[in-house]
Amino acid sequence: MSQNIPQTHEGHNPFGELLGLNFTSLEAGRSRCSLEIREDLYNPYGVVHGGVIYSLADTGMGGAVYSRLKGDELCSTVEIKIVYFRPVVSGTLTCDSEVIRRGRRLAFIESEIRRGDRLIAKATGTFSIFKAEGGLG
Amino acid sequence: MSQNIPQTHEGHNPFGELLGLNFTSLEAGRSRCSLEIREDLYNPYGVVHGGVIYSLADTGMGGAVYSRLKGDELCSTVEIKIVYFRPVVSGTLTCDSEVIRRGRRLAFIESEIRRGDRLIAKATGTFSIFKAEGGLG
Amino acid sequence: MSQNIPQTHEGHNPFGELLGLNFTSLEAGRSRCSLEIREDLYNPYGVVHGGVIYSLADTGMGGAVYSRLKGDELCSTVEIKIVYFRPVVSGTLTCDSEVIRRGRRLAFIESEIRRGDRLIAKATGTFSIFKAEGGLG
Amino acid sequence: MSQNIPQTHEGHNPFGELLGLNFTSLEAGRSRCSLEIREDLYNPYGVVHGGVIYSLADTGMGGAVYSRLKGDELCSTVEIKIVYFRPVVSGTLTCDSEVIRRGRRLAFIESEIRRGDRLIAKATGTFSIFKAEGGLG
Repeated sequence: MSQNIPQTHEGHNPFGELLGLNFTSLEAGRSRCSLEIREDLYNPYGVVHGGVIYSLADTGMGGAVYSRLKGDELCSTVEIKIVYFRPVVSGTLTCDSEVIRRGRRLAFIESEIRRGDRLIAKATGTFSIFKAEGGLG
Repeated sequence: MSQNIPQTHEGHNPFGELLGLNFTSLEAGRSRCSLEIREDLYNPYGVVHGGVIYSLADTGMGGAVYSRLKGDELCSTVEIKIVYFRPVVSGTLTCDSEVIRRGRRLAFIESEIRRGDRLIAKATGTFSIFKAEGGLG
Repeated sequence: MSQNIPQTHEGHNPFGELLGLNFTSLEAGRSRCSLEIREDLYNPYGVVHGGVIYSLADTGMGGAVYSRLKGDELCSTVEIKIVYFRPVVSGTLTCDSEVIRRGRRLAFIESEIRRGDRLIAKATGTFSIFKAEGGLG
Repeated sequence: MSQNIPQTHEGHNPFGELLGLNFTSLEAGRSRCSLEIREDLYNPYGVVHGGVIYSLADTGMGGAVYSRLKGDELCSTVEIKIVYFRPVVSGTLTCDSEVIRRGRRLAFIESEIRRGDRLIAKATGTFSIFKAEGGLG
């Protein structure tokens, strides 16, 4: 069994747990993850901190890429750009991510973060794919 | 006394407190903030989650912009791009942010995140500046 | 008749003409523009220069935003991120752009650049919207 | 003699020639290139088209990365984000680019575009580095 399955998305995700983040689907280059908004996720203006929304995108992208890896491959975030459309204060945030291109060494992913049917933010990212022994970038 | 001072950076920052983030300087368009790495900030690979590093940048940028606001102005993140150079597992992360251009309605900010003298990540962002009554976007 | 119509997309676009860029549709927050690949648009590797592909996106985004402006409004590019998926050497490049959110002062646009049905690049951008007398930023 | 030297920056750069772009320095991970503003580089608003400024950055980044390549390596643009600060209508545009991190397979570059001492735009990019036989990403 490959080393990266339990570590990556079926295993322990400490920061995801701190945020209350859960994956509800993860297959074929797509993922959905969500979290319940809590007041300890607020910024000083009393709305959800941008870093929380970003963390959904980064984690969701990682899951989407992971679902396209072979057993001896790992991935890491190269860069992400996120754009915010609306502040949000309560309810459930859901992040849908999709690999839009998977090369040998790079994957490109898009995420949409919604509360209900309201678009809150969008993100685009590049991930590096490498063999477990090969190391980063 | 302006409404945004206590709310913004001298007041309660719930998500910053969850991360253990502290500002050590904040003036004239520059800020420095830091946090001690803890294992509950790890991703599934056992290194600090990219969302933690991003949150330092987003918060640090907000502080740098805040230091250039007039009393009746507020700001919000429009977009941020972050690039990661190296994983990090322990120690103190420090984020230096600087407003490189402050227009009437937009500010442009750069952040560098380091552990000691090692560059971990860089980010560039755009913030919107608006009057308290005016609202977003 | 508003000042910005003839100037912007029905009028003279010198750099667009240098590239051979044409708009084939432009309405309701969407645009399509295209150009025929020529060898003088190549980079040193003998494929279309990334700046040509970017220029399609920037121009197409400007058109899409323009189609959502009121008569006394102008727009300018704040920032664009572009990602390249495949090199291209011949044929017609087509760029579809769409305003995905139009606030009072900012618009967010996405572009897809294709050769036939092959996705060549994608871009996301932020444009500033302002009154003709108000100036930039 | 390596295959990529004449192709890349000492050889024919058709789109660079169309723009009037010249490299004035290129070594050790840094480059400087410039162009004289001409009216056929204008957008419909009568200022230099954003695609011209972007093309300086993309080309300058490529030069800076090239100066760090080994003889059997090639590079290509993965993604670039550019931010515009001021419009410009005449004079000389100069672009300074620097590789801020060069990994085995990825390089990260920053560019500043100026007219005289006025900062016009900044860009950050990721380039892929690969062996001549290996192909893209």
